[in-house]
Parts: sequence; structure tokens; C-alpha cells
Amino acid sequence: MRCNCNNFTMAYNLLKGKRGVIFGALNEQSIAWKVAERAVEEGAQIVLTNTPVALRIGAVSKLSERCNTIIIPADATSVEDLKNLVDKAMDHLGGKIDFVLHSVGMSPNIRKNIPYEKIDYNNFFKTIDISALSFHKLLQVLYEKDAMAEYGSVIALSYIAAQRAVEGYSDMAEAKAMLESIARSFGAIYGRKRKVRINTVSQSPTLTTAGQGIAGMADMYNHTNNLSPLGNASAEECADYVVTLFSDLTRKVTMQNLYHDGGYSTMGISAEGLKK
Amino acid sequence: MRCNCNNFTMAYNLLKGKRGVIFGALNEQSIAWKVAERAVEEGAQIVLTNTPVALRIGAVSKLSERCNTIIIPADATSVEDLKNLVDKAMDHLGGKIDFVLHSVGMSPNIRKNIPYEKIDYNNFFKTIDISALSFHKLLQVLYEKDAMAEYGSVIALSYIAAQRAVEGYSDMAEAKAMLESIARSFGAIYGRKRKVRINTVSQSPTLTTAGQGIAGMADMYNHTNNLSPLGNASAEECADYVVTLFSDLTRKVTMQNLYHDGGYSTMGISAEGLKK
Amino acid sequence: MRCNCNNFTMAYNLLKGKRGVIFGALNEQSIAWKVAERAVEEGAQIVLTNTPVALRIGAVSKLSERCNTIIIPADATSVEDLKNLVDKAMDHLGGKIDFVLHSVGMSPNIRKNIPYEKIDYNNFFKTIDISALSFHKLLQVLYEKDAMAEYGSVIALSYIAAQRAVEGYSDMAEAKAMLESIARSFGAIYGRKRKVRINTVSQSPTLTTAGQGIAGMADMYNHTNNLSPLGNASAEECADYVVTLFSDLTRKVTMQNLYHDGGYSTMGISAEGLKK
Amino acid sequence: MRCNCNNFTMAYNLLKGKRGVIFGALNEQSIAWKVAERAVEEGAQIVLTNTPVALRIGAVSKLSERCNTIIIPADATSVEDLKNLVDKAMDHLGGKIDFVLHSVGMSPNIRKNIPYEKIDYNNFFKTIDISALSFHKLLQVLYEKDAMAEYGSVIALSYIAAQRAVEGYSDMAEAKAMLESIARSFGAIYGRKRKVRINTVSQSPTLTTAGQGIAGMADMYNHTNNLSPLGNASAEECADYVVTLFSDLTRKVTMQNLYHDGGYSTMGISAEGLKK
Repeated sequence: MRCNCNNFTMAYNLLKGKRGVIFGALNEQSIAWKVAERAVEEGAQIVLTNTPVALRIGAVSKLSERCNTIIIPADATSVEDLKNLVDKAMDHLGGKIDFVLHSVGMSPNIRKNIPYEKIDYNNFFKTIDISALSFHKLLQVLYEKDAMAEYGSVIALSYIAAQRAVEGYSDMAEAKAMLESIARSFGAIYGRKRKVRINTVSQSPTLTTAGQGIAGMADMYNHTNNLSPLGNASAEECADYVVTLFSDLTRKVTMQNLYHDGGYSTMGISAEGLKK
Repeated sequence: MRCNCNNFTMAYNLLKGKRGVIFGALNEQSIAWKVAERAVEEGAQIVLTNTPVALRIGAVSKLSERCNTIIIPADATSVEDLKNLVDKAMDHLGGKIDFVLHSVGMSPNIRKNIPYEKIDYNNFFKTIDISALSFHKLLQVLYEKDAMAEYGSVIALSYIAAQRAVEGYSDMAEAKAMLESIARSFGAIYGRKRKVRINTVSQSPTLTTAGQGIAGMADMYNHTNNLSPLGNASAEECADYVVTLFSDLTRKVTMQNLYHDGGYSTMGISAEGLKK
Repeated sequence: MRCNCNNFTMAYNLLKGKRGVIFGALNEQSIAWKVAERAVEEGAQIVLTNTPVALRIGAVSKLSERCNTIIIPADATSVEDLKNLVDKAMDHLGGKIDFVLHSVGMSPNIRKNIPYEKIDYNNFFKTIDISALSFHKLLQVLYEKDAMAEYGSVIALSYIAAQRAVEGYSDMAEAKAMLESIARSFGAIYGRKRKVRINTVSQSPTLTTAGQGIAGMADMYNHTNNLSPLGNASAEECADYVVTLFSDLTRKVTMQNLYHDGGYSTMGISAEGLKK
Repeated sequence: MRCNCNNFTMAYNLLKGKRGVIFGALNEQSIAWKVAERAVEEGAQIVLTNTPVALRIGAVSKLSERCNTIIIPADATSVEDLKNLVDKAMDHLGGKIDFVLHSVGMSPNIRKNIPYEKIDYNNFFKTIDISALSFHKLLQVLYEKDAMAEYGSVIALSYIAAQRAVEGYSDMAEAKAMLESIARSFGAIYGRKRKVRINTVSQSPTLTTAGQGIAGMADMYNHTNNLSPLGNASAEECADYVVTLFSDLTRKVTMQNLYHDGGYSTMGISAEGLKK
């Protein structure tokens, strides 16, 4: 049942016996890909999901083989697809879900290089639907189906543009602000009623396929890498961190936005960091 | 040209010679109503705007008489209406706009008492469009038309549910989180390019017509009123504060969310406050 | 009774009839100097105070002449001196105090160029005593003597190093973090018991005599000036802002740390800003 | 070498081969006690330290037996004691230190029930020296001796009074604000120069011996327990969380204040939570 990928040096059985659903793995650069690998390595059973398009252009079937699991296609903006996903995931995993990773985001305004001060509002609604509202839909389906185990952990990936203006990140800033708000709002309800925790991880700029689509991404990456005392956090490191947040060791952490960024978020001015 | 309403004891000419646009006055309880009165009292010329429906059910014509000005109907979600509004406002006011108040918000999910964990997503998009995206549309129209004077000031009204889970505030939490994000994102651009500042004021629960539509509003109002060391801020006090933020005395304040709440936002635990 | 300095173009009588105490004016570069001038221009009566040393080396007597007032020497770390100051100030002003500016800070570790990782702890206690604890002492004396008028306003000047690591700012970061904490802690008590409000203004790096003593100040100033969409806020602009916070128009703002920084605090990444 | 205490159901070898120093264990209620037990259970070797007085009145020798280790007495305000501690700890552990827990705090003002608005300033300096400056001293000694291994992790325990006014917490609010500032300021340097990470964990009110000394602690505990969607975090749960932050899985988390509080920090208003 364990992943037969042997490239990990660490494995603690942190997620032994746990069942998870991972959204958003596209290829080996994806944070979600790394999370899937690490979760399995740590003893979890998972199912993978992504949109039909992503499944066609990506390499997810390779990941599903490595992790000895199935892929359940789902458009994260479709409540019907999400219902089907949750049903099938529980079927396949044989019980309630212990953890979920939401790594979903896309802005047509960014893709089309439309400046923020001229964004197209139909695009904007797509950005929001895909990148933020999908998180609410997912939580709503999980909640209605009572599909999460007690002290289950749901994590969505965010970015500091939710707090500070980042040139080129466009309407994804609003999507991330909303995503983090959903984590708090739904976290309050899901926590009180079913003891499920919901957090966001605010990750360093990461050179994933999605990240590389953002104008000025290389500059953004280098700037934060230089300014962060520990440098940017990689996708692998993010996966490590997410695993701890899925584990039983973090059961009272909820409704938080957790920076995983080498210290960037609380770094002000560093002559050394800026010189580079 | 001055408002002939004589119920103010203070008047400093803080906005003398300034031109403003006020969204969202409905009746005498409205914060926007109070801002309009105070702005005129402080020497500004203003125009009023609201949706055709609000103009029909509200008492805005009374306000326009008191303030000796016109009403330009506009649906804040319609870019066409906003363009027309900005053109007509500049025409009427005789020049570029110095300040704008965005006091616009509505959630069909709240109106229909749909719990947050069951929200309807068509309603959600309406909430967002009306309560948050309208702010981007307004800024985009102002920016395209270069309609704001240098060091002009744009303010939108927000609420602490953008930072903390508030039962009953439903998807307005996400709308306010997005609203504040727009203030930062557009503020960065508008500030750098045209020296226009954009802020949100995070106001105490206020017993306006809109506020009273929120389930549990009375409890929310009393809880924060008791816990805030200075008690809740009233609509009149909010108007006073907003006037300072429109004035030339706050020209380097931008991209901020400013709590106007009697200290609630930084109040933790108070036996005395909770006993009440 | 009004200041006979005629270099202001704006004067609104915002502080008409109010009585204030201004700490920390040294010379014309001082923020406190500008606040004193603007307060008087806005109709306030003030008294000035600084340490005997500062009074000797500075130009405060010139300011007192311009503002037609007296200087009461006080070491802000001495409760006795503060008691004497408050008594004499009320005597001179003829009543309770409406506003106070605390612009006091000094780090022997910075003065002696001792790196943060090697700070001397005797120096550290001096930094804290002068730059933060003096604020508590002042508030305690005001509170004990019931010296503040209802809805009086106390403001201390702070800096974003309280939230983010700033190279070269050394133990002043801890002093400012403590200063802001005192504003909240004492603000809760003073607000509930006597309706007095207490806030800090987090100001851009400013080229005052104190500011210029910080290693790398020029770089810090330029970096934030370039990155802030509106550029750094000047001492004059800070004085304008502080005047609004002393006025009756901001009576429900308390226990806040208010950024006055041209947008720096919520600015993330700007290619244009960093290029400069 | 492993702790022979068998009361843990989880053990992942998360800290296998790691060396740690734990400050502040007094008795079985102490968070530090629980961290010590869990660290050993997770495969770490540790040394314990506390003040001579605490060692006399507490039960630390029992803990040292359970964990098969030594106790090195140290007054955390004494640089000499800290130097001795670090030297002896490295000797005993056989190498550089991988993790440190700073769980040190005491306010004579609280002990003597002196209200915040009347605090004694000699007491205040003791509060600061013990509860905050001790953290800088510890970091300075570790840094000078180059005693931390690369990607080592230092954690100090904090409380939300650093952000929000909490009645009865008195000058410990300022101590915690300073403590968190030290984590950022020193974290920036230690991160850049030696890749060591420094964080604070902002823990729910916990019914430890120290916690119980705070006036109104029971009310504070109950209020946050009711309001937090997941309830307060216990000392055991805190230990679990701290273990993840000591592990290699969180290597890019630094300069953060991490709430471990069942969601309290982002909870606004809950009728259900307040009714209780």
C-alpha cells in the first residue's frame, strides 16, 4: 500500500493509517505533487484529483502509479464533481478523510497579461471561482457529507499577496485574501461542530508551472530569496511542512495563515539582502 | 453652495474647495448619509449616488436637498453606470474628484438567512460583485478617466469580519477581505502613478438599515459595545473620521485598513467588558 | 495666544481651545517640533518638554518663542519629573490636558554602534526605559492625577521595526514593540475608565537628528522611499496627521498602531520600486 | 538513551539523533515538562535547566530521571549562567544543539497583585529581564559560541496579550511583545548567518503553576475555551506542536509567532461561544 518511491531520506509514519485527498498535482514541480509523495511516504493512503485538462497535459498518471493510487477527475468549481470526488475518495480509501490539500489557482487575467488596473471582470469571476470559491465548495461538500474524520486537517496554499501588494500577481491577490477568509469563516463552523481544522500555508514564490506563468516571477523569486534570511522555501520543504499540519501533532492549530517563507514575511530591511 | 443644515457644532473647513462623490446613502441611519452631511459642512461640494432601487425606497432626495446637490443613479456593479456617474460628477462639480466614499454592500445569502455552510454560489457572486468588485470597477473607471485629483482620497467601509470569524456575517466576510485587498492592490498602482490614496475604514457594528439585516446584529452590536473600551463608534463618529481621511492632513496614509471601533480590534479579554 | 509663525497655508482650528503637551522637540527637523507648530496653528495651547540636555543642545527656546509658550524640563524616565511636568502644564494651560505627543527614544547600543547580536544589557535597559517605559510612566502619572480631559488623545511615535526586522535598528525594535503594547494595555484601561484614547503612529524613516544617528539610515530612507507608492512621509506630514488624531474627529480611534508611511507597510514587491 | 516513560501513544522518531535544551520545566503541569517528555519520546537527547529556586521547589529531578538526563541549574537572566549552561549542555549532549525551548516568564507585579496602571518599575524591569531579555541573552550566548547546529530551531512560548489587551496579564503583555520582537530581530541575523530559525508559539491560556498565578486566570481560561472553535490547546498538545517545530520538517519556518489556540486568535464573535 506504501508508495514505492525511494527518494526520501526521512519517513516518520506521521500519517500512518490516514486517508487524504490531494488537489492540484500537475507535474514534478507542483507543490501538490511533492505533498502527495510525502504523504504516502509518511504512511497515508491518498487519492489524487485534478481537472480533466490538467490530467491530459500533466504527468499525474505517473504520480498515481508511484503512489499506488487512483486519480478522480474533478473540476474544483463544480459542486457535482466535488460530490462525486468525495464519494469515490471515501469509497477508495475505505473511510472518512483525514486530510485534504487544496492547491488550486488560476487567473485568466494573469494568463492574458492584462494589467490589474484593466482587468476583465468575467476573467475576475473565473479567477475567484477557481482559486477561492472552489475552497468553499469543497468544504461545503465535505461538511454536508460529514466526510472528514474528527480532527481532520484541510490546508489550502496561499501567498503573501493577500496581505501586501505584489506587482504582477493581479487579481490572484484578491483570490488569496478570499481563500484565507474562507479558512477562517468555515474553520470557525467546522471546528465547533465537527472538530475539523482549516488552515492556509502562505508559501514562498515557487517555480512551479503555475508560478512561472506570473509576469516577473523570476524577479519576485529572487527578491524574496535574497531578502528572506533562510531563503525561499522550496516545494519539497512545503510538502514537509504540510505533512506536519496533516498530522495528529498539530490538532489545535486552526483558522491560521501560516507563513512558510524563510522569514520573508517579517523581514523589513536588510542591506545585505537588498545588495544581492 | 454650502449645506444649509445647521445641526453641526463643528465645522473646520477641512474639505473647503474639495469635490466628492458619496455612494450608499439610503436614509438618516446610513453612514454614507452622515459622511455626506459632514463633507458638505466641512466645505466640500458633493454628488450623491445610489442604485435606482435604493433611490426609490430611501430618502436620498431629502439629503440632496439638504446638501444642495444632485443625485446620479448608478448600479455600482455596472461599469457603464460608473462611467456615466464619473463623467456627470466631474461635470457637476466642475473638475477632478478629490474624494470618494464607497459604502456599498449586500449579501443575498444573508438576506435569505442561508447559513454560511450552505451558501448559494449564485448569491455569493452577487455578494462579491456588489460588495467588493464594485470597488475595483469604480477605481478602474476613475483611473481610466484620470478623474481623481492628485492626493485624492478614496475610502471604502469595511468590517473586522475580514480578519476574524463573525457568526452571521456569512459571505460578507469574504467580500470585506476582498475589498481590503483591492484597496492595497489598486492603492499601490494608483499611489505610484497618480498619487491617489486608497484606504478602508473598519467600522464598529452600526445600526444602519443594512446592519440591521444581519442575523444576530443586536447581539453583535452589544457584545462589541461592551468589550470596546470606548464603546462602539457611531455613524456620526465614522463620518467625522472619514472627513479627516478625505482632508489634506492625511496625505501619506494609504493602503491601510483603519479600525474605527472604540478599541475593539485590539481588545482581548476584559472581565468588566464581558460581565455586562 | 496663537503662534505667530506664518508659514502654514492650512489652519482649520481643529484644536481650538485644546491644551497639549509635546515631548521631544529638539530642532526644526524634529517631528515633535512640527507637531508643536501645527498644534498651535490649529488653535491649541501647548507646553513643551524635553530633557535638560536636549534643552541645552537643541533650539527649543526658539520654538517656545514662536509658539508663545513655556518649556518645562523633564527627564521622561523620572516619575518625579513627570509629576512636576503634569502639574505645571495644567497650571500653565489652565485645565486638564487634551492631547500629548510622546516622541522620545534613544538607544545607547545604536549610538555606540554595538551590533544587535552583541548588545550590552545595561544599554538595553536604558533603551527600554527611555524609549518605551517612559510612555507607561507618563500615562501612569496622567492617570493618577486624572490629568487628561475626557476623549483626550495620547500619541507615541513608533516605527515598523516593531513588526519586521530592520537591520541597524537594533534594540529600538524591542522598544517600539513594547511601546505599541503599552498603548494597547493602558489604552484598554484608560479608555474604559476615563474615555482617553491612546495610539501609536508608525512613521516612515525620517531624517531627524535622532533618525540620522541610526546606521544605514540613508539606505533605509531611500529603500522605503522608493518602495512606498506615495514615497516616505515627511515630518511635516506626520504633524498634519497627528493633529487629526488629537482632534475631536477621531474620538473612537484607540489602541491602534497607525501606519503613516506612504503605503510601505502593505507594499510587497514592486519592480519599479526596487529598480530605483 | 531513550526515555523509559511509556505513557505516549505516538512516537515518530521526529527528533531522532537531535540534541536539545529545555528551559522552564517545574512540575507535571508545565508545558516545558511535556515538551521534554515528548522530545525524548521522539528520539532526542535533552538537558534540562531551570533556576536554583525552581529546582528546589519543583519536581524536575523526577523528570530528569524519567528522561535519563541531567539538570544544569541556570538563572536565565545571567549571561554567565547561560554560558555555563551551553558549554555543559554541549559537553553532555556531545555536539551542537539542535533545539531549545524557552519557557521562562515571571512578573513580580502580577505576583503582588499590583494593577497595571500602578505597576512598580523595579518590578517591571524584573519582568522584562526574566521573561523577555533572557531570550536575547540566551540567543546571544548561543550565537557567540556558535552552539546551534545548522537549521537548529529555537522556540519561546508567548501569549496573545502581545497583540491584544488582556486584563490581569499586566506587564507580561509588554514582555511577550518584546519576546516576539526578539524572535524576529535575532531570527533575521541568526537565519542569515547560521541558518538557525527562531519562532514563538502563542499558546492558549494553560493551567500551569505559572498560569494559575495570574488574577482571573480561570475566567480567562474559560472564556477562550468557549470561544475557540476547537477549545483551548492543552500543555500536551503544545508539546506535540513544538516537537514539529523542532523537527526537520519545518526548516523554513522562522521569525513567526504561531498561534496554537484552537482558533481563538482569529475568532471574532460566536453567539454559541459566548452563551456558554
